[in-house]
Amino acid sequence: MTGGMDERSETTAVDGEEDDLLLQLRRLEISDNAKGFVELLSQLSPATGPLSEEDFRARFADLAALGDDHLIVVAEDRRTGRIVATGSVFIERKFLRGGGKVGHIEDVVVDAAARHRRLGQRVVRYLSNHAKAAGCYKVILDCTTDLRSFYEKCGFTEKNIQMALYF
Amino acid sequence: MTGGMDERSETTAVDGEEDDLLLQLRRLEISDNAKGFVELLSQLSPATGPLSEEDFRARFADLAALGDDHLIVVAEDRRTGRIVATGSVFIERKFLRGGGKVGHIEDVVVDAAARHRRLGQRVVRYLSNHAKAAGCYKVILDCTTDLRSFYEKCGFTEKNIQMALYF
Repeated sequence: MTGGMDERSETTAVDGEEDDLLLQLRRLEISDNAKGFVELLSQLSPATGPLSEEDFRARFADLAALGDDHLIVVAEDRRTGRIVATGSVFIERKFLRGGGKVGHIEDVVVDAAARHRRLGQRVVRYLSNHAKAAGCYKVILDCTTDLRSFYEKCGFTEKNIQMALYF
Repeated sequence: MTGGMDERSETTAVDGEEDDLLLQLRRLEISDNAKGFVELLSQLSPATGPLSEEDFRARFADLAALGDDHLIVVAEDRRTGRIVATGSVFIERKFLRGGGKVGHIEDVVVDAAARHRRLGQRVVRYLSNHAKAAGCYKVILDCTTDLRSFYEKCGFTEKNIQMALYF
């Protein structure tokens, strides 16, 4: 599943001879607020409103302080300069399994206008590769049942149920 | 569900007049390695071996650096000085929902010899209260289906499925 992808940066012409879309998968940068990163997240969670530049920078700094224990990948469409896919992973450090680590994948979303190009799979592979390189013994995520087959294609298997308590 | 419990420390005589077990729910302390904390985790994950004092202290320091974004609660049996229940929560900071936060509950376990005293519920309530106080809009966890009813008693509802990829 990992396929020797360079985690840090990858540029690929996406399928279709007519399709000259060039995509770069890379870590989130502080300039990505202007490239539609938060707007893209609103396709995942409708309760997501725009963040002020100040709030964006503050959250960016919170997460940067975690170093490689937190990573957000984005795919930028080089033609338009817009962010068209993203996902995040954070590394949880445990006391069990000899001080094992677990990667938690969150907030994977592909722009509705950029579907059917395996962007989702590439985002998930990028995040899984990061978790593996960080020494995690597994990577996990929660999703709706209609995404089960997508994540199976990414190498995942269904394990448990997710319970939630909203405040 | 929160019931006004003091999150920091709670001492309670547990049910039954004959039962003079005194339990204190409190944050994990560095001295808890000697009180059976990691042994207790091995009841949850059989792949858990003992941690050297050095490794325990290193992991403790990793997590302490996260401040209130990571909390491990333990219940100590004051008669025996042993840890009989534990659970953890970490706070994930997101860009969506206006920079929302989500609490992730992990590694909840009650000593097999200390069951049927609502210790699990108290651990989960402690962790949920922490997440709520930290400003999370929800707290989530993954569990096997046989624990669904237990977490429903704790106020949770089933939402999604968990997918996993083992390395």
